[in-house]
Amino acid sequence: MNSIVIIGSGNVATCLGKLFKQYGVAILGIYSPTVSHAKNLAEILETDYFLSIEEIPTDADFYLLAIKDSSVEEISNQLQVDGVVLHCSGATSIDVLNTHKKFGVMWPLQTITKNSQLTPDSIPICIEGNNEMVTNEIEQLTNIISNKVERISFEQRKYAHLAAVFANNFTNHLYEMASQILENNGLSFDLIRPIILETANKIQHAIPNETQTGPAKRNDATSIEQHLELLKKYPEFRQLYELLSAGICKHNTQ
Amino acid sequence: MNSIVIIGSGNVATCLGKLFKQYGVAILGIYSPTVSHAKNLAEILETDYFLSIEEIPTDADFYLLAIKDSSVEEISNQLQVDGVVLHCSGATSIDVLNTHKKFGVMWPLQTITKNSQLTPDSIPICIEGNNEMVTNEIEQLTNIISNKVERISFEQRKYAHLAAVFANNFTNHLYEMASQILENNGLSFDLIRPIILETANKIQHAIPNETQTGPAKRNDATSIEQHLELLKKYPEFRQLYELLSAGICKHNTQ
Repeated sequence: MNSIVIIGSGNVATCLGKLFKQYGVAILGIYSPTVSHAKNLAEILETDYFLSIEEIPTDADFYLLAIKDSSVEEISNQLQVDGVVLHCSGATSIDVLNTHKKFGVMWPLQTITKNSQLTPDSIPICIEGNNEMVTNEIEQLTNIISNKVERISFEQRKYAHLAAVFANNFTNHLYEMASQILENNGLSFDLIRPIILETANKIQHAIPNETQTGPAKRNDATSIEQHLELLKKYPEFRQLYELLSAGICKHNTQ
Repeated sequence: MNSIVIIGSGNVATCLGKLFKQYGVAILGIYSPTVSHAKNLAEILETDYFLSIEEIPTDADFYLLAIKDSSVEEISNQLQVDGVVLHCSGATSIDVLNTHKKFGVMWPLQTITKNSQLTPDSIPICIEGNNEMVTNEIEQLTNIISNKVERISFEQRKYAHLAAVFANNFTNHLYEMASQILENNGLSFDLIRPIILETANKIQHAIPNETQTGPAKRNDATSIEQHLELLKKYPEFRQLYELLSAGICKHNTQ
């Protein structure tokens, strides 16, 4: 049986902690610089919490640093343990953990909030270890909570993180722009929630090239002109409309 | 009981036809300039098909023109009927139908393919009639197949259509860009399908402003710089990255 200490108490710590608990990994306890947060998460996961880094048991198999990128190295340097030390960051090298003998990455490629109802099917996890043996150990642990575990290099991870910015952050900003266009014209965002969901559903069993539609895809210059006219009041949206349409047209003719 | 003739045999004709059939609207038959297409859809909907416009019965309550925008006016002008003539276009005025006494719009705000498994909850429909009485008739019919029927003006419809371009067409193009970034780095699109779905799921019960995350949202200049560095090989993606990030930052500080 695997045992793990979770360091951190935010969204990723909570979500992964719940999955570990659900699938039978022994969570030895929670540490967070803010003790009340550690206590809260410990209650949810029915485990202990530690008041200081020194209290953390040294005999766990894994130590999961589910904390913000900028704190990983500092907290890692304070840990005196023999188990595998892992961080959860898409944008951070494993090298910041190299004061340890065994270290690596367990990066969930997902947007995670405290109340996310994620399952092993909906949480791909990218892993990396400081050597083959450690990577095997990380993989064996990660397989318990995810049905999509990928061994990828730091270089690949950086690009996967960038792809996620397009697929999540920028997509959400498109939703925001659509929301403003609707609101400014007396229309509810409710009107487009179904098309947003269907757009994401479709791509679960297709590739984006197959599901692309719209004026730019069919080179419909009249509709594009009409949209640009409507967007005169929104110069920034207009510029994005033009660039995105040009991108679709260009991809079309490739 | 309502009766309807469907003119067209594409995705919208098929999807709305199936919903009408499922919810008990009498489909008197299908007309399409391509007879074999009309025949196919008529078989699916277990109804008749017509070999010419002249064969279309004149006593239906509704005539649904589910055909491409550029053909609506021409086909409408050939119809000699007393029922309500409807088109399904987001970008076309109802005025192109004004040779009829009763006319209007039934525009599904959804991305529709032949195999779409849409339900009354997942297909908002925007309607408009040439007068209040006609709008009431259209609303009563539309309520049968949609739980989200909105009376909106042509001006509003144009903006709703534009919002849908952002929420669907442009979102899909972001998926395409993410897919290319992954593929060029030896990674599978499968890796980000879950985050795409979760992004759309989250917004079903939130507004985009609440769900925005990422480097631009937290003004993380270091991450943004790193991403722009990675995007040097993709000048067009880079330009979009900059514009979208600027949009998120700006929205943040508003």
